[in-house]
Amino acid sequence: MGHQYVHGYHPRENERLHDQAGTLVELLHSDTRYPAGSVVLEVGCGVGAQTLTLARQSPGARFVSVDISADSLAEAERRADLAGLTNVEFRQADIFALPFADGSFDHVFVCFVLEHLTRPVEALPILRRLLRPGGTITVIEGDHGSTYFHPDSAAAQQAIDCLIQLQRMAGGNALIGRQVYPLLREAGFDAVRISPRMVYVDASRHELVDGFTRKTFTAMIEGVREPAVAAGLIEPGTFDAGVQDLHRTTEPDGVFCYTFFKGVAEAT
Amino acid sequence: MGHQYVHGYHPRENERLHDQAGTLVELLHSDTRYPAGSVVLEVGCGVGAQTLTLARQSPGARFVSVDISADSLAEAERRADLAGLTNVEFRQADIFALPFADGSFDHVFVCFVLEHLTRPVEALPILRRLLRPGGTITVIEGDHGSTYFHPDSAAAQQAIDCLIQLQRMAGGNALIGRQVYPLLREAGFDAVRISPRMVYVDASRHELVDGFTRKTFTAMIEGVREPAVAAGLIEPGTFDAGVQDLHRTTEPDGVFCYTFFKGVAEAT
Repeated sequence: MGHQYVHGYHPRENERLHDQAGTLVELLHSDTRYPAGSVVLEVGCGVGAQTLTLARQSPGARFVSVDISADSLAEAERRADLAGLTNVEFRQADIFALPFADGSFDHVFVCFVLEHLTRPVEALPILRRLLRPGGTITVIEGDHGSTYFHPDSAAAQQAIDCLIQLQRMAGGNALIGRQVYPLLREAGFDAVRISPRMVYVDASRHELVDGFTRKTFTAMIEGVREPAVAAGLIEPGTFDAGVQDLHRTTEPDGVFCYTFFKGVAEAT
Repeated sequence: MGHQYVHGYHPRENERLHDQAGTLVELLHSDTRYPAGSVVLEVGCGVGAQTLTLARQSPGARFVSVDISADSLAEAERRADLAGLTNVEFRQADIFALPFADGSFDHVFVCFVLEHLTRPVEALPILRRLLRPGGTITVIEGDHGSTYFHPDSAAAQQAIDCLIQLQRMAGGNALIGRQVYPLLREAGFDAVRISPRMVYVDASRHELVDGFTRKTFTAMIEGVREPAVAAGLIEPGTFDAGVQDLHRTTEPDGVFCYTFFKGVAEAT
């Protein structure tokens, strides 16, 4: 996969991802349910942020959740055990070398993974072949270019742009959400249907102010301060002002907007 | 009101607004229904793009639709007559000098109006006082800063920025959508509830490709070529490249995103 910057590998990042899943779980996952008896491949499960929700929501389905990181898998397994889940099997594997026969799965689930791949358009046909005819893939990705807020702030936009640039330097694409449709089409999937999931946060939505604007998005930006400054992408003072302005959007007159893209498509 | 640039005053603009309403009508207005017997003030009805939908959807309500432009009102009245509507009364008036007593209305409806006002925060309390206690206001505004697309294009973003700057020079605010919540709160409204209406367009959504990306948004940008170049905001070649790139997003692998904000709040 060859990326230098990947979410979910450090304790603070882990906490962030779980905050994110806890806050966004309804918005992103409430309509993902798999029938009893179906076999679902989750690719890039990381520390299990989505796995627990998926497995709980579809207790009759069997999940095979893979990740390239043994450490993440160990943590995911620990959490699944704690939650008493018995319908998930964890396996270490690279998305470009998955140890499964063609047509092995009824469904594939991929969340916050394509953004980190240098070759997303090569990964998707691999996943398509693992599906039985008529099986579905679900892809969820964010898009940092969908971020805007009130009060507006050039410094905050520059700080966000650092994350976009760092992800690009690592071979990824922080603007991939808007591309889920063309990527799935190019990979040969049919019946591609995208539903954007906009996170709109104003002061009346207390849970999202804290759970999304503050602890998910702004925390994620804060997390790249060191590499952004080290790479010469921004002055430390500008970065800090940008982060302060992101926190400013959590005040009573502030507004924050971000959009995730969820795509479902069929293998034929 | 003192603005130089206002939508809806020229034939081509009129056509654009009607294309827009025709395409977006379900997204923006399908959940706006007023009970029989209620009296609704529509402020800034222009050529009646929204009036017809409102009056058709709530045949038992009585609408008073005002605009500052006699020409626009004449056109709105013509359209209402053609549509056989009998529950709309048109009146010429300035939003800052409305000829109605306090508490005269059950509901107020304001769509694509605040973006053009130099003092939106002063207009809203005026409208609040025209409502009976417990009456509601509905505000709908776009936000050009919510625009992003695939393939991305710096020239297209620059062309869009010309419209944002022209509107600012005319005293308006093309980024007002994200501010509907704080504006309604600051104006003293209660129970403010915002629902963003994202227009997501990919090649599978033929009607929106043509009706929104091409004939509404890109046509709107094309419409400011002359003033943008005359104001020295952009080189003609860059502008034209930007417009071409906006059209590029209507191809089979293209994606276009824009968000409107609809707010409903109560007067107490």
